[in-house]
Amino acid sequence: MRRAWVISTGTELTLGQTVDTNSAWIAQRLAALGVRTERHVTVADELRAICDVLREATRHADLVVLSGGLGPTDDDLTRQAFADVSGRPLTLHAASLEQVRAFFSERGREMPEPNRVQALLPESAEAIRNQTGTAPGIAMQIGGALCIALPGVPSELMQMFESDVAPRVAADAGGRVLLSRKLNCTGRGESEIGALIRDLMQRGRNPEVGTTAASGIIGVRLNAEADSSEQAQRLLDETEADVRRRLGDLIFGHDDETLAEAVGRLLRQARRTVSTAESCTGGLIGKLLTDIAGSSDYFVGSAVTYSNQAKQRLLNVPADVIAGHGAVSAETASAMAAGARAVLASDYAISATGIAGPSGGSAAKPVGLVFIGLATPKTVRAHELQLGATSGRVMVRLRAAQAALNLLRLELLGSRRR
Amino acid sequence: MRRAWVISTGTELTLGQTVDTNSAWIAQRLAALGVRTERHVTVADELRAICDVLREATRHADLVVLSGGLGPTDDDLTRQAFADVSGRPLTLHAASLEQVRAFFSERGREMPEPNRVQALLPESAEAIRNQTGTAPGIAMQIGGALCIALPGVPSELMQMFESDVAPRVAADAGGRVLLSRKLNCTGRGESEIGALIRDLMQRGRNPEVGTTAASGIIGVRLNAEADSSEQAQRLLDETEADVRRRLGDLIFGHDDETLAEAVGRLLRQARRTVSTAESCTGGLIGKLLTDIAGSSDYFVGSAVTYSNQAKQRLLNVPADVIAGHGAVSAETASAMAAGARAVLASDYAISATGIAGPSGGSAAKPVGLVFIGLATPKTVRAHELQLGATSGRVMVRLRAAQAALNLLRLELLGSRRR
Repeated sequence: MRRAWVISTGTELTLGQTVDTNSAWIAQRLAALGVRTERHVTVADELRAICDVLREATRHADLVVLSGGLGPTDDDLTRQAFADVSGRPLTLHAASLEQVRAFFSERGREMPEPNRVQALLPESAEAIRNQTGTAPGIAMQIGGALCIALPGVPSELMQMFESDVAPRVAADAGGRVLLSRKLNCTGRGESEIGALIRDLMQRGRNPEVGTTAASGIIGVRLNAEADSSEQAQRLLDETEADVRRRLGDLIFGHDDETLAEAVGRLLRQARRTVSTAESCTGGLIGKLLTDIAGSSDYFVGSAVTYSNQAKQRLLNVPADVIAGHGAVSAETASAMAAGARAVLASDYAISATGIAGPSGGSAAKPVGLVFIGLATPKTVRAHELQLGATSGRVMVRLRAAQAALNLLRLELLGSRRR
Repeated sequence: MRRAWVISTGTELTLGQTVDTNSAWIAQRLAALGVRTERHVTVADELRAICDVLREATRHADLVVLSGGLGPTDDDLTRQAFADVSGRPLTLHAASLEQVRAFFSERGREMPEPNRVQALLPESAEAIRNQTGTAPGIAMQIGGALCIALPGVPSELMQMFESDVAPRVAADAGGRVLLSRKLNCTGRGESEIGALIRDLMQRGRNPEVGTTAASGIIGVRLNAEADSSEQAQRLLDETEADVRRRLGDLIFGHDDETLAEAVGRLLRQARRTVSTAESCTGGLIGKLLTDIAGSSDYFVGSAVTYSNQAKQRLLNVPADVIAGHGAVSAETASAMAAGARAVLASDYAISATGIAGPSGGSAAKPVGLVFIGLATPKTVRAHELQLGATSGRVMVRLRAAQAALNLLRLELLGSRRR
């Protein structure tokens, strides 16, 4: 099998009341098995809509995996859609009826009559056993496509996919494998990073290389197709090495690794500790660092000093520095970092002070102006960032926190090389 | 407009590496505007695939909203797809080019050459202004459908939807109105809150009443359908009053109002200030309080004291309190709150100390055990929470932060009544 469509059904999905996570999960598992998903489609709990998309899918794909609509109530229409599109009438499947009954009797209950319909399958279809719920799945050939229906409950869907669908797909996939890797970058925009690897991003290349941007982090994705995992891994290794040569320290981690995790890893390796002094970020940098289990090994604490008085009382920022240069200044950022390092007795300290907006800006100090500071065992310095008056408060704060973490990351990398 | 298709593009989506949350968000907003989404489709970053689905969508829907593929790199193909399907060539849109340039110049940078393509639009298309990023959106009629393209970055997509797409759709929706309202609750579980309003949740009632649970906040949703906004508003008002009578102080706010915003509103009304003393929450409470613009009016600062030494140095927690009762204890939580209130000179202070996990627990003090403290002008007290050893680090920290904020909220409500 080479081309899959993944279908989900549910009016709560089409109306957007629930986010569909099943389709991404199925597509990811199919990719690992070497089958590329070409399209995801979501339709409401309406027989015609389900029939329409199922018919289209069997014309374009050779594997169709549908989730949802196998429950016992009147808005569960997947069984009927499979029957209508295949032209095979629904008939009672004795073994499935036994399993539905057993599900209830194991829990000391009689099977409610409505659940009986869950044992109906189109003639000639195979039932997929559900070990954790009542609805059996359906597997049947319709036209040129193997069509699979699974329940929408994620835990049931996953169990049935692993125990039944994955072996079928693997047996048929003929050995092709699709493996992925992601390199996470910060410090430059998507277009600048794209320009550095433009030739690798050309269509038809294997591995396929693409970029994504989310919350200030640029991801470089590599997707390799090959006849074996080993071969796919080797292709990924080669391209990753090439991307790393070009992007160097712009890359801070891979796959799901966050910037704070990368900083934590470097601190742990260097056996150093960090504290933070935060004004505009309001505690976000400490929050990001402590999102990571075990961060108490290297994170000492933060002084979140929103008011000028707090800057003086918690961090010993001299009143004349604030009076002379302003709370949003390189001098205050430096004094905050130095103060946190001294008061909290850490090896490094990072600071952020700025104007997150939407108000509080001026011509000289517009919204989006942020100073980040870094105190190391040897020096204290500050950098000015202009994060844009229209970026919005959330983004200004997040970018400021990322820039402060990245400043520390580059310092730790540099001191490792020295 | 009555029937919409929502399309998302991205190979990271079709391969299941990223869960598509944009489509659900768009569909939910369209529903609120009276337009029902019939189908969601996701395709890869391939020109033919995007053109195919766009063409299909224009045949079946009268509104098509597509997200993704407007970036500056070669795998951003939505502009070209709109041009190909509409038969209108891409031309440079001068105002958009100015806006892309301005985005960079506000940040003190030259526009990188690749970003120039973001100002290309099919002839006769309208540009949708992007206030927080570089990619303008596209609005154009193709066949019988109004087709909209928005960037995939959720914050940009949301801003552009609200400022441009929503008004277009609202102007066209005509007739029936579907209005929604949400009451946000904390302090009890979803089933307990559901039990208090069970009769209102019956099917077929107008307004429809339902509950949702997300990140520890229980939302009570009211959806009213009527021939006019006034009528829908009146229906909502009546049911809201009924729900409020039953749930009382469990309700902290409505619609998008966060718990931290509700606390901020009460502090502002009372002209009081707050500081926080955080251990397991790592700065999260301060971060939540300062997510809100203008929070400097009532938020002084936080002492994030992860290590015992930091608790002593920043907050003057006596060493013998930590030695005698442990860092995770009611006594330490109280001493932290009292210390923050004194050191940061605020009217109130809230604290949290606990075991976020996954490691660090013991039989006597399991993962999920958290003490929250509250210091007021008159008293200091602490509460014990058991947030569950299997809830996970993220949820333990979030629930602890919410409980601390809610403790302060109830105190402020109580002192207002006294």
